[in-house]
Amino acid sequence: MKIGLDIMGGDFAPKAAVLGAIKAYKVLTGHTLVLIGDKEAALSILADNDVSPDHFEFVHTTEVIGMGEHPTKAIVQKPDSSISVGFNLLKQGAIHAFSSAGNTGAMLVGAMFSVKAIPGVIRPAITTIVPKLKNGLGILLDVGANADCKPDVLVQFGVLGSLMAQNVYKIDSPRVALMNIGEEEEKGNLLCQATYPLMKQTNLFNFVGNAEGRDLFGDHADVYVCDGFTGNIILKLAESFYGITRKKGVQDEFFDRFNYEQYGGSPILGVNAPVVVGHGISNDEAIKNMILLSKDMVESDLVNKIAGAFQ
Amino acid sequence: MKIGLDIMGGDFAPKAAVLGAIKAYKVLTGHTLVLIGDKEAALSILADNDVSPDHFEFVHTTEVIGMGEHPTKAIVQKPDSSISVGFNLLKQGAIHAFSSAGNTGAMLVGAMFSVKAIPGVIRPAITTIVPKLKNGLGILLDVGANADCKPDVLVQFGVLGSLMAQNVYKIDSPRVALMNIGEEEEKGNLLCQATYPLMKQTNLFNFVGNAEGRDLFGDHADVYVCDGFTGNIILKLAESFYGITRKKGVQDEFFDRFNYEQYGGSPILGVNAPVVVGHGISNDEAIKNMILLSKDMVESDLVNKIAGAFQ
Repeated sequence: MKIGLDIMGGDFAPKAAVLGAIKAYKVLTGHTLVLIGDKEAALSILADNDVSPDHFEFVHTTEVIGMGEHPTKAIVQKPDSSISVGFNLLKQGAIHAFSSAGNTGAMLVGAMFSVKAIPGVIRPAITTIVPKLKNGLGILLDVGANADCKPDVLVQFGVLGSLMAQNVYKIDSPRVALMNIGEEEEKGNLLCQATYPLMKQTNLFNFVGNAEGRDLFGDHADVYVCDGFTGNIILKLAESFYGITRKKGVQDEFFDRFNYEQYGGSPILGVNAPVVVGHGISNDEAIKNMILLSKDMVESDLVNKIAGAFQ
Repeated sequence: MKIGLDIMGGDFAPKAAVLGAIKAYKVLTGHTLVLIGDKEAALSILADNDVSPDHFEFVHTTEVIGMGEHPTKAIVQKPDSSISVGFNLLKQGAIHAFSSAGNTGAMLVGAMFSVKAIPGVIRPAITTIVPKLKNGLGILLDVGANADCKPDVLVQFGVLGSLMAQNVYKIDSPRVALMNIGEEEEKGNLLCQATYPLMKQTNLFNFVGNAEGRDLFGDHADVYVCDGFTGNIILKLAESFYGITRKKGVQDEFFDRFNYEQYGGSPILGVNAPVVVGHGISNDEAIKNMILLSKDMVESDLVNKIAGAFQ
């Protein structure tokens, strides 16, 4: 397997990305890491760390898409950027997964333009991990790819999240809940009111009803479905709480499990190849885990399983 | 001033409510507390605590609206419930404010049926307090009265929240932000994209742009505006975080300031009288502070100031 990594993406690129690649290659026996970006910079960081370049493959690129750039314009105007080149390699099958801690919007647009959405998937979604108070984890989606959603799109997110939970996190018959503002079927905004009956009658996943904001860290469900506006607000609020507990020096294994580093990144589900977007502030540990997550996505054959569900 | 309290509302009613009333009357010099509910039960709790009933007025009622009852049906079918009677007294001017830790929906419906929305206010909103990391507090609205909102409704929430911040919490020129999923003007769902330009051009409040989930506990703004779906999810998520820090024994003044008890309750803004809804789990301290908050709303003449803004 060849795993592509954008070494120019993220606030601490290329250093954090290359250091993460060094950590990852040591545990990735039998697979090859393809470092996409400024080859000279990568070689220099490897040399500084006494790591032979022979452990990696390199694809040199000359352009970088910045964190603040407009995604669609940047993808079009910078064909030799590490993100554009990464997606071309992914489309050609020269790499089997692609990950980056760079511009999330550009990663999403790049995925849609190159490998494209899986036939039948109306809108791919970005997922994140939610730690449970009693060990284990849940999956929240969408966290920002689709600010406005229709009911059938939310139902599809249930399918995507359920397959992710089952295949990558090995959760049997994952419980899927609809993020809402009340327990009862008739509660919520118009979107939820229209979505609930569709989820209730689907046999595509194990629907367990509504979840409220207070249920997110409980053991109510394994997959929490919402539109990308709601999910993004939840994600950023949760991150800020985690940040506050760190700032306050709170020591607790539950809060430790909020640390994004150990999850590596957010998969974009519903596109024709494994794609993972890392946090902009990713350090080497986060990058390593982003690489391992993309490997898990390839090994579990998640993309084909999603394609099968939408046939 | 006569302040009405529903003593049948909340999980620990009537005991917590009457004990809260005892705490409140001691600091409410010159004002009268009107206890609405089962008079015999109230007298018995007062006797148990060696408090003379002469410190209060009583309005006896024979029915109770339960926490799980359908708001509109309950208000119509239980005319002698403490909530229905309380709103009748409020409408007649026999009390100047009404508060309850009971069924939130029934409080909202009761307010709309009796004192009604202030002319010009499209949809009243329920507010909550958000502690700031660096002392002080912010106001979040709507947290559940209106799951679906139009842009002009969100602009009105900005007016309501700004006047609350100014008059009750004495914040000069309160900064109003739109809860969104990006900093830039064009970011967000269709609702936010349509609301931003309206807020930008209004001179009804001091608009400071978008706030994200991560900004809520910072000092970005004093008032955070969102639809009731988003606000309710934020509120319940924040409450669950607070609950987790308590459960984990985290000692910190910031987390202490999450404790709803000290804020007393959530005002319903935009109706023709001060109305406050308390948390269902309110204890005596929370009830006391709910009473003091309704007093502050009367004293600051908030309702007339809101009416003036919508003339």
